[in-house]
Amino acid sequence: MIVVLAGGVGAARFLEGLVQVVPPETIVAIVNTGDDMVFHGLHVSPDIDIVTYTLAGIVDPAQGWGIRDDTTHTLSMLATLGAETWFKLGDRDLATHIRRTELLRAGWTLSQVTDAFRRALNVGVRVMPMSDDPVATEIATPVGWLHFQQYLVQRRARDEALGVRFVGVERARAAPGVLEALRAAETIVIAPSNPVVSIGTILAVPGVRDAIVASSAPVVAVSPIIAGAPVKGPAAPLMRAVGLEVSVRGVASCYRGVIDVLVIDQADADLANDLRVSGVDVAVTDTVMRGPAEKRRLAEATLDAARTARRCRSY
Amino acid sequence: MIVVLAGGVGAARFLEGLVQVVPPETIVAIVNTGDDMVFHGLHVSPDIDIVTYTLAGIVDPAQGWGIRDDTTHTLSMLATLGAETWFKLGDRDLATHIRRTELLRAGWTLSQVTDAFRRALNVGVRVMPMSDDPVATEIATPVGWLHFQQYLVQRRARDEALGVRFVGVERARAAPGVLEALRAAETIVIAPSNPVVSIGTILAVPGVRDAIVASSAPVVAVSPIIAGAPVKGPAAPLMRAVGLEVSVRGVASCYRGVIDVLVIDQADADLANDLRVSGVDVAVTDTVMRGPAEKRRLAEATLDAARTARRCRSY
Repeated sequence: MIVVLAGGVGAARFLEGLVQVVPPETIVAIVNTGDDMVFHGLHVSPDIDIVTYTLAGIVDPAQGWGIRDDTTHTLSMLATLGAETWFKLGDRDLATHIRRTELLRAGWTLSQVTDAFRRALNVGVRVMPMSDDPVATEIATPVGWLHFQQYLVQRRARDEALGVRFVGVERARAAPGVLEALRAAETIVIAPSNPVVSIGTILAVPGVRDAIVASSAPVVAVSPIIAGAPVKGPAAPLMRAVGLEVSVRGVASCYRGVIDVLVIDQADADLANDLRVSGVDVAVTDTVMRGPAEKRRLAEATLDAARTARRCRSY
Repeated sequence: MIVVLAGGVGAARFLEGLVQVVPPETIVAIVNTGDDMVFHGLHVSPDIDIVTYTLAGIVDPAQGWGIRDDTTHTLSMLATLGAETWFKLGDRDLATHIRRTELLRAGWTLSQVTDAFRRALNVGVRVMPMSDDPVATEIATPVGWLHFQQYLVQRRARDEALGVRFVGVERARAAPGVLEALRAAETIVIAPSNPVVSIGTILAVPGVRDAIVASSAPVVAVSPIIAGAPVKGPAAPLMRAVGLEVSVRGVASCYRGVIDVLVIDQADADLANDLRVSGVDVAVTDTVMRGPAEKRRLAEATLDAARTARRCRSY
């Protein structure tokens, strides 16, 4: 069994490669829910939906989120009726949030809803929220603490990011199956997601970091930073906000003690020795995922790195 | 001020005529909410929406409900996710239910939501739910009591209707402004709606029937039955279920003691004397509303009938 810690778009694309290499049924994706937010009274779980839609083959390929060829008629009418519509939600996508909210109100857990939806969409990978309890990622800015979605989407990351917190995480319990999956894993992969607000959130759920550190499986991370910049998303200001350099060195620093080996891009090959000296093993490959073949190759290289990794994380 | 008791499609079309004759701002529509139902966790108020969409000029003209040129992408995806989708809800229409549900959960009353939406859609007529409290119209059938929407939409009225009840109506309070509007009315009109499950529900709200009977204004009803059949909808089996003949005689019997004058179609002119003998004044005109001109003429004829009516309802 391969367990993948996942954020949104980067993780979803990595998983598209991984399902080409191993049977989807042997993969568990543990997904960040710190970005979840209620819009129009509906529970939206962006990263879970990105991962599920991508693996279902229905994601909007240009955006990386939402459903392909979706329309926004509901959102237009919501605007007419006076609602705030800065968070874009397509009509098909809204069905997910409507149904999720209905089931949560009926007493289902987010885990149960997530599993029902991935099955309804014929996704073989087991998709699990990191927790069924609410956790809210917030960004400190000069205008105060902002929910991650307000910071990123509503205000387009225009505020200086001064810090990050995960509200509620200390009381959150890992979702059923999460710690069990980490204990049973043959390989643990940290997908190329934002190390602070995607992976950092998952690692902050009580028990998760310990389960990874204690696991006998190799732990491999794929750097989301290539040549000093993220492929997508707000990793740069958020890494800086928590004192991390926006580089593979910063990623390695963030994951030190948790991973055995970091997969970095050819563009960062000159930093490999620095990283090794600092105590993290390194594998160098092409990490930019343009098409299916590149996704597959990155998955293979990642599993290879895990297979040959020396254990270098600390208990 | 003209107060109109309203169900769905027939009432909405009548109101389209009335706003051509008097300023919309002088009209209050008191609308049935017994058909309201929660679908996918969302509060749907079919009659309020039909009236509001129609007066806003955005109703689907062929169906008489829903929004013109609407799509059903959300509903398709809801079906994929395992939801029951027998109640058709378009994408634009869903925005109304999403926003209504959000506002109700935030503590707004249905009256407040309804007023906000009609203003957002530039509807001059004041649209009021009959009550802010839940009332559920149920139909007795051989398979048990069914919510009106289950009886009509899910099971397509295929069960024998044996009786009708309005669950919760005895505890329901008339919505703010309803009794005040009836007391202040210069004319009270019962729109050509189902006398049992649209108007009957409104009349069953404590205080409404008394306020109408006590009013000094003339009370005029427009028959929804023409030549022994309703123009639209399930009036025939539901009138029979409560012991009413499916005819203008049945309508007059239903409204006896509440109205002064009944507007009936030319096709029923031969029954006018029967009705007068039975104690209801009658006005005969064309009541089929095909286009704007006919709607306007029916509204004029209805107001004329009210103006010349003798008071023949009982205190």
